Amino acid sequence: MTLLGEHPSTLVVVPRTERSSRRPDGSGTPRSVDKSRTRRALLDGALDLLADRTLDNLGIREVTRAAGVSPAAFYRHFERIDDLGLVLVEEAFATLRSLMRDARDDVNEADDMIKRSVAALVRHVHDHRDHYRFIAREQYSPVISVRLAIRREIRLFATELATDLARLPIVNTWPTEDLVMLADMIVGLMVDTSKRLLDVIEEAPDREPEVIRDTERRLRYLTNGAVAWKPRPRS
Amino acid sequence: MTLLGEHPSTLVVVPRTERSSRRPDGSGTPRSVDKSRTRRALLDGALDLLADRTLDNLGIREVTRAAGVSPAAFYRHFERIDDLGLVLVEEAFATLRSLMRDARDDVNEADDMIKRSVAALVRHVHDHRDHYRFIAREQYSPVISVRLAIRREIRLFATELATDLARLPIVNTWPTEDLVMLADMIVGLMVDTSKRLLDVIEEAPDREPEVIRDTERRLRYLTNGAVAWKPRPRS
Repeated sequence: MTLLGEHPSTLVVVPRTERSSRRPDGSGTPRSVDKSRTRRALLDGALDLLADRTLDNLGIREVTRAAGVSPAAFYRHFERIDDLGLVLVEEAFATLRSLMRDARDDVNEADDMIKRSVAALVRHVHDHRDHYRFIAREQYSPVISVRLAIRREIRLFATELATDLARLPIVNTWPTEDLVMLADMIVGLMVDTSKRLLDVIEEAPDREPEVIRDTERRLRYLTNGAVAWKPRPRS
Repeated sequence: MTLLGEHPSTLVVVPRTERSSRRPDGSGTPRSVDKSRTRRALLDGALDLLADRTLDNLGIREVTRAAGVSPAAFYRHFERIDDLGLVLVEEAFATLRSLMRDARDDVNEADDMIKRSVAALVRHVHDHRDHYRFIAREQYSPVISVRLAIRREIRLFATELATDLARLPIVNTWPTEDLVMLADMIVGLMVDTSKRLLDVIEEAPDREPEVIRDTERRLRYLTNGAVAWKPRPRS
């Protein structure tokens, strides 16, 4: 699991210093380093197990076994599996946010903007399959706290995108409500595309270009739609 | 669980004659009646259990216990849980199809069409919560056969909607590919709305009008977008 190592910007949950693999010999008290390493091992072990099942089906013992720690160690970090799930939600959305930053740096011109945004998403899903799969699977999880957290994060994500959209011509005169609606639909398309990509990556890699082309057309349809849209004043 | 009793039209999966309690030998022997009743009890028991968990987390013993039959009885109807899951997929999509029929009968005029379609969906989600929840949860299920079946059904559903759309002005000159794209986005919105409705029904019923209004606006955005869209010839 090199996900977090590759993207230091995703470390919103646990500060980098706590996560580093510094040995208990010198700097950092041995005990706290061990403790943060155990926490990381628990999160990574859970994410590995979640590659082919859902969170409501995950036992504490399996997670500690996968992490190579004692069952008791789990309770020093989390009260139950749901809490661990919430940390995974935060980490997964930190990954999504790093996509948005990458895309923002990368995106400039009109039609190209669409191709570039989709290309950034495709790269990202390839690099962070476990996070995207986790969000796809748990978005309607029976584990309510996790489901609510994902919904909240998606809403927040759309609000952030709306702020970006507000700078573009045509839509920059729209009321916030309309901007958020468009941003919501774009985020929905992104999430949907990530799910389709996960499927083709695993089962039919030759169909990836089709998914990409399809997503570009949908994104073009959504952004073109702005021309035909007359935002209504709030009722 | 009276779902199927209420909706005989949902029995598309197995031809009606095969599903009836008639045996190949005589007609309607007590034994075959029992058999079909057991099958129904297993499906309903499973659907009840799936109200708060996922299919990959369902045991045969629990299902037979919920159905009030012996564990051995399960194997007379299904080889494993996945097979039962596939039947639930078909039944759930038969429900979705009955929504489309209702909406088709109901829908006529332009702006009203949107309000009516959304109203039909809302009624339907209220009446068939377990089917909509099942689709939402299992759309990205770790159970591959079920995930693929849901994807296939959604694609089929969009193709059917495209045929309906083909009769409308503006889009009736579009190539099939573009019609399917629009239909796909509309179906995506419907599925997404059903998930949001399930959440508000259970957790914040006072927010239902907001979801309805929001869905109407998105649907309006999608259909308005047709005016601005220039279908491209296949590349």
